[in-house]
Parts: sequence; C-alpha cells; structure tokens
Amino acid sequence: MKKYIQEQKDWIDKEVYKRIEELTEEGRLRDAIMYSMEAGGKRLRPLLMKATFDSFSSEKPVYISAAVALEMVHTYSLIHDDLPAMDDDDLRRGQKTNHKEFDEATAILAGDSLLTMSFEMITADAHLTSDQKVFIVQQLSAAAGPKGMVSGQMWDMQHEDLETDVETLKTIHLNKTGRLIAFSIVTGGYLAGLQENSLKKLREAGAAVGLIFQIQDDILDVTGDKEKLGKPVGSDESNKKSTYPKLLGLEGAKQEKQKYEKTVESILRELEAEGTPVAELISYMSQREY
Amino acid sequence: MKKYIQEQKDWIDKEVYKRIEELTEEGRLRDAIMYSMEAGGKRLRPLLMKATFDSFSSEKPVYISAAVALEMVHTYSLIHDDLPAMDDDDLRRGQKTNHKEFDEATAILAGDSLLTMSFEMITADAHLTSDQKVFIVQQLSAAAGPKGMVSGQMWDMQHEDLETDVETLKTIHLNKTGRLIAFSIVTGGYLAGLQENSLKKLREAGAAVGLIFQIQDDILDVTGDKEKLGKPVGSDESNKKSTYPKLLGLEGAKQEKQKYEKTVESILRELEAEGTPVAELISYMSQREY
Repeated sequence: MKKYIQEQKDWIDKEVYKRIEELTEEGRLRDAIMYSMEAGGKRLRPLLMKATFDSFSSEKPVYISAAVALEMVHTYSLIHDDLPAMDDDDLRRGQKTNHKEFDEATAILAGDSLLTMSFEMITADAHLTSDQKVFIVQQLSAAAGPKGMVSGQMWDMQHEDLETDVETLKTIHLNKTGRLIAFSIVTGGYLAGLQENSLKKLREAGAAVGLIFQIQDDILDVTGDKEKLGKPVGSDESNKKSTYPKLLGLEGAKQEKQKYEKTVESILRELEAEGTPVAELISYMSQREY
Repeated sequence: MKKYIQEQKDWIDKEVYKRIEELTEEGRLRDAIMYSMEAGGKRLRPLLMKATFDSFSSEKPVYISAAVALEMVHTYSLIHDDLPAMDDDDLRRGQKTNHKEFDEATAILAGDSLLTMSFEMITADAHLTSDQKVFIVQQLSAAAGPKGMVSGQMWDMQHEDLETDVETLKTIHLNKTGRLIAFSIVTGGYLAGLQENSLKKLREAGAAVGLIFQIQDDILDVTGDKEKLGKPVGSDESNKKSTYPKLLGLEGAKQEKQKYEKTVESILRELEAEGTPVAELISYMSQREY
C-alpha cells in the first residue's frame, strides 16, 4: 500500500506542477505557489478521489482536474491557516511556512491564487461535460466555503482558549477537514457514475473518514514514533490544543475511531464496495503510523 | 443618471444580502462579511453588467447571480488589500476596514469566504444553463486569479517604492481593476446572446473602461471636491502612490483618458451600441465628480 501511495503521488505531483505553470506567470507569486505545493504532503485527498473512482468504474480517468483542484484548495487553506494572524506557524512538515519563506502579503496572495485557480482549472477541463463541471465547482465551493472548511477554521480559532467538549471538537473537524475529504470521495463516486442515493451514502462515509484521520492524527501525536512521523510527538500537549486523547483518554479516542470505522465499513458494504481500492486505502490510512 | 444608479443599487444590495444569508451561518464570520458588503460602494461592476445586458437584450434578467458574485469578488479583494501585510489601511470609505472593525484572522476568512461563495452562487443559480455557469465561472476565475487581479495586486506591491513608468502603471491597473470590469461587460454581453467576435470587442472595451475609471480616480484625487467625493483629496500625493497625473501631468492624464474613451466609443459604434445604457453609463462614470 505504501508503494501504491508513492506511485500515485508521482502522477499527482506532475499534474499539479503542470497546471501551475499553465495558470500563473513566472515570478515571485508562482514561486510561492509552487513552494507550498511542492512542500510534501501525502496527496491523500486526490488519492481518495482516484481510489473511489477506481472502486466503481473501470472507465478512463476523468477526475484529474478535480483531484488537482482539491489539492490546491487544501494547500491554500494550509497557507492561510499558518499566517501570523491565524495559527502563527513558522514550520510545516519541517519546512518554513510560506510567509516565513516569502512574506505575509505574498502568502496571502498565493493562497488566494490557489483557491481561484482551482475553479478555473475545473471549468477549463476538456474531458468533462458542462454538467460535470457544474457539479464539481458547486460541491467544492460548498465544502470549502463559510458553511464548510472556512467555518471550521473560524470555530477552531474561536475555541482555541476555551475548554472544548467532544461535540465541539467534532463539529470543528467535520468542517475543517471532513468536508474536503467527503468531497474527494463523493466526486470520485459521481464521476464513476453513481447516482444521488449512493452519493449521499458516500458523503456520510466521507465525513466519518475525515474524523477517523483526525483522531488517528491525534493518537499519533501521543503514541507515534518521531522517526516515522518525521515530526516531534507531543506537540498537541504543549500547544494546549484540544484533541480526542485529551478529552477521552487514549483508549477512549481509539474506541471513538473504531465507531467511525464501523460506520464506513457498513456504508461500503451497502454499496458492495468491500475490498475495493477505496476500502483498502481508508483502512490503511486509519492504521497508519506516519 | 445619478438617480438611475441609486435605483439599481437598491436591488443589487437586496440580492447581495439575501445571498449572504443563504450561504453563511449566523455569527462573527457572517457579520464580518456583511460589514464589508454593506460598506457602501457604487456597485459599479454589477451595474455595468446589467447595463450591457440591457443594451443588447430585452429578455428577462439572468445576470443577477453573476452580478452579485462579481461584487463579492471585488469586495474580497478590498478586504485582503487593506490588510496590514498588504496596503495596511485603517479606513475605507470613511469606515474602519474589516480587520480594524473585527480582527485580521476574521478579515482573511471573510475574504476567503466571499471568493468561495461567489462560485457556489453561480453554480447554484436555477436560471442559468450549465454552459452559462461554466462560462461565467471560467471567466470570473481567470479575471480574478494569478494572471489577472491577483497579479495586479502583486505587481502593485512590488512596485510600491520604485519609480514606476506609465507602461507599468497601465499593466497594474489592467490587471488589478481592468479584468473585473471587463468581466462585467463581457458577461453582460454573453448572457444577452452576443457571439464570440462581439465578446472579444467587449473585452477590449472593458479593459479601456477600467483604465478610464482609474485615470478619473487619479484626476479626482488632484482636482476633486472633498464634499462630493466624501474623502480627502491629495492622498495619493502624500502616499507616494504612482498616478497618471504624477507621471503625465494633469493635462497629460486627461489626454490619456480621452484616448481610451475614443477606443470605447469606436468599439460601441462597431457593435451598434451608441446611446445604449452601457454607453451612457460609461460616459457618465468617466466624467463623474464623486
């Protein structure tokens, strides 16, 4: 599975860089955009979209611009979240954050660019019908906007210094990370030809997948191996960040994760998708050690 | 004409507020979005779209979501441009800027929200066909993105402290304001049913209109009446900002503006659009005193 993920990462990276060169001009702004898009990351969201598509279709891939757009929206959100006025982070994945490597103004505009380009790229894709483009733009903007990802970030900041309960934490993660992850799975299914009742189930599974990944992230910050993770453990503790292990204990967090794993399994069973690439990828990611 | 503009402003405002209520949840983020959308402004861009549509069609209006989306994208750009890391402005139109009234993080997210919502709104509009939605999203994202408005802002910041020549100033304005103004006119024409060869001409006219408005802005900052403008004059001088009167002298700036007025007139004549609402609106705005 690790090898599969690495292989997929290669084509995704290639597509990402190609689109950035097409949609930007040479110069500092492109350099800043490229810097953050190159800064590693598992390309988990595009991968989930591809795996879902492959689980329900053997047609040729039509998800590429949607997958790249999704990764761009994800990266824009990281650049803006890292800004001094937001989470004020100097490092991400061991590298300087965008505003540290460049400057704040450039980082703001690089994020704005990525968000805007993602919609341009989808509408310019010659392999999609107009109806498909409209579906993707609508779902992506709804997932990323003020009833989705942005509201998650807003809540996150407003609850930073407060005692958070599990319900609030769940709401934050459902919006902040769950909506884009659900988008990746729903869009993969949509482009594979699934109908609205199946997409509704995938949306529900996607929300659960977002929570699984977040809880596993929190667990790894307690039990993880620094070498495998490539980052220090225990940073949530020192950051006073609310996490599942803090609110529920380590065992409680693992049980919470299992609950969502069962939700996902049951939905995939209904869709007759046991043992498919998406089922395997989710299961692998939920047990991951890095 | 002033009365016509005021009447139009009313329906545009109403539509803007309705959409924000639909697409956001109650709370601080919505308040911040609403604050900047309510902060006045002439609604010039939506107005130009409507006037262009009315000049070439007597069908019922289908431009409303595109017009509101455009105003949202314009407002997002103002919120981000005012940020401390960018132009660092405390006031806009006599009111506190968004980050002064709220805070920087909220202002960044309010801008991000408006940009994202604009695309969501277009794709959700039941009065447009999928082809129309794709056209509008593609044109708007291209106009607003890193080969359009954002690149204009990037250039503007990079040339702030340098001696700017007229060519550079023109490039900045063509991107920073010209592209969205061209979008308003082109989209009005497109929705009215004009074909690609006419839209190409409108795009050219739109770029010229952007420059006319910018030059008139610069001229008013020298010759304007503080009472009519509702803001102090001479602020460009004290800001060390590059302007047309500074580079060409007041007479030179007026001549430059006339050059673009002739371009616009000649294009509108080719399109048999003399004396139409869009011709009158452009002519009024180019002579405006406020």
